[in-house]
Amino acid sequence: MSKVSFSEEASVEVVTESFADTPDPRLKHILTSLVEHLHAFVKDIEPTEAEWEQAIGFLTATGHLCDDTRQEFVLLSDVLGVSMLVDAINNRKSVAATDTTVLGPFHMVESPPRDLGANISLDGNGEPCVFAGQVRSSDGTPLAGARVDVWQANGAGYYDVQQPDVQPERNLRGLFETDERGRFWLRTVVPRYYPIPDDGPVGRLLTATKRHPNRPAHIHVIAEAPGHASLTTHVFVEGSPYLDSDTVFGVKESLIRPVTNVDDPARAEHYGIANPFRLIEFDIILDPVRP
Amino acid sequence: MSKVSFSEEASVEVVTESFADTPDPRLKHILTSLVEHLHAFVKDIEPTEAEWEQAIGFLTATGHLCDDTRQEFVLLSDVLGVSMLVDAINNRKSVAATDTTVLGPFHMVESPPRDLGANISLDGNGEPCVFAGQVRSSDGTPLAGARVDVWQANGAGYYDVQQPDVQPERNLRGLFETDERGRFWLRTVVPRYYPIPDDGPVGRLLTATKRHPNRPAHIHVIAEAPGHASLTTHVFVEGSPYLDSDTVFGVKESLIRPVTNVDDPARAEHYGIANPFRLIEFDIILDPVRP
Repeated sequence: MSKVSFSEEASVEVVTESFADTPDPRLKHILTSLVEHLHAFVKDIEPTEAEWEQAIGFLTATGHLCDDTRQEFVLLSDVLGVSMLVDAINNRKSVAATDTTVLGPFHMVESPPRDLGANISLDGNGEPCVFAGQVRSSDGTPLAGARVDVWQANGAGYYDVQQPDVQPERNLRGLFETDERGRFWLRTVVPRYYPIPDDGPVGRLLTATKRHPNRPAHIHVIAEAPGHASLTTHVFVEGSPYLDSDTVFGVKESLIRPVTNVDDPARAEHYGIANPFRLIEFDIILDPVRP
Repeated sequence: MSKVSFSEEASVEVVTESFADTPDPRLKHILTSLVEHLHAFVKDIEPTEAEWEQAIGFLTATGHLCDDTRQEFVLLSDVLGVSMLVDAINNRKSVAATDTTVLGPFHMVESPPRDLGANISLDGNGEPCVFAGQVRSSDGTPLAGARVDVWQANGAGYYDVQQPDVQPERNLRGLFETDERGRFWLRTVVPRYYPIPDDGPVGRLLTATKRHPNRPAHIHVIAEAPGHASLTTHVFVEGSPYLDSDTVFGVKESLIRPVTNVDDPARAEHYGIANPFRLIEFDIILDPVRP
């Protein structure tokens, strides 16, 4: 026994020493940091053996619920704010650029390329509206040919992949390209707030902590343009319930937009919608990639 | 938006605030501490989005491998030293009392009651030996009628539950009661070191960090006596490989015992074994429960 024995005091030293020969320095750093923080957590809460067994059971149930269409560990990361934290760390940006927020678990299928003005609501479930904006570089230059990937839940609060027997395939998804002035526009429906799946361990956690499972109404956007950093965000609908208590902490005030009523026959014709119409406008500012 | 928006700086404040209405104060404390330590870990390592996805995938694969006979999250807790830390926190004891160590995942069936001197090796796989000792209170008083629960792997390094088609049921398990002088003795085989199951995510973690999956040879013991704190421990076999690098950090120097050669016809007859014989002696000291 040349080494230090395990004890409360020596626990971090003993366990990090076991990772001393890890060839990949990044993996070694991650595991060393994990052991430091995980042991500090255990020492802080001093779990009983029964509480430790509950934790093992919770993680096991979370794993068992994961399959091709349900990712309960992503939900757990979401409701603990870890997903937003990883997003924040990976998207430090200029003041000018549009704020980012989480990707979410529903970008699991590719959005189909569509022409500007197309209607992505294939089931007609929800209140029709236009979603339009301009993509610009952080110096104000309009970005022609930028790609704008859009997806959202329908008027009942469900994504197509959650209701494969009800909604048409690729309902409420579209990949658009901005025009020569950097503009995009499309027809859709006003999104609705919805609960994250709450019939599993994460739902039980929310119930036990008196948290609701809801996300405020939003449209997902990924914007990309040559020479610019890709941007993943949402636009949130002003006035939606749960804007001040999004269960995944995704809301940023800068991303909230009203649904306005527009009475303008020329614009209605441009958008291919009956006048008057409802409109959500959202301009997107991208940072150039540093050389 | 009355609340603070999510940001790197405000992440702990925003997420712990979401648990403010948790009715159970213990759960609230655990979740608050979890968020503090988990966010500190994420801020320390600054994971890329791909690394976060790898972590989600690792946890998911760990959950998928858990079933009635395999508990991969317990293995993960073991190889990260968390199981030993929980053991240490829950078993702070007097200097006199025997050191504790982990329960391990193989106490999943009840040990059958057996008479003192019984042979628990039903498959005869391994080198025969006697396992004997005395249970005493921390003031030295022998504890008659104490219960000594013993289980171990066979000479090939497997527990009965790992080889249901090979080993007899309840092989190498027994529940004994000490005699009027607090003594217990039984026949068994010298245990062998063995690898923890290493064909899953935890095994891949060990491989990536150049850690071996082995535990040194040991016999598991739970000792209980009226008026005393129950004690869960192992006796480790002196000279076994991996005593200085147990992959679950279970070894304490105070728990290592030699396998001695005994040439004593009277003792051999007492133990019901042919002379000469091999012997592992292990006295167990229990703390009285504080009034």
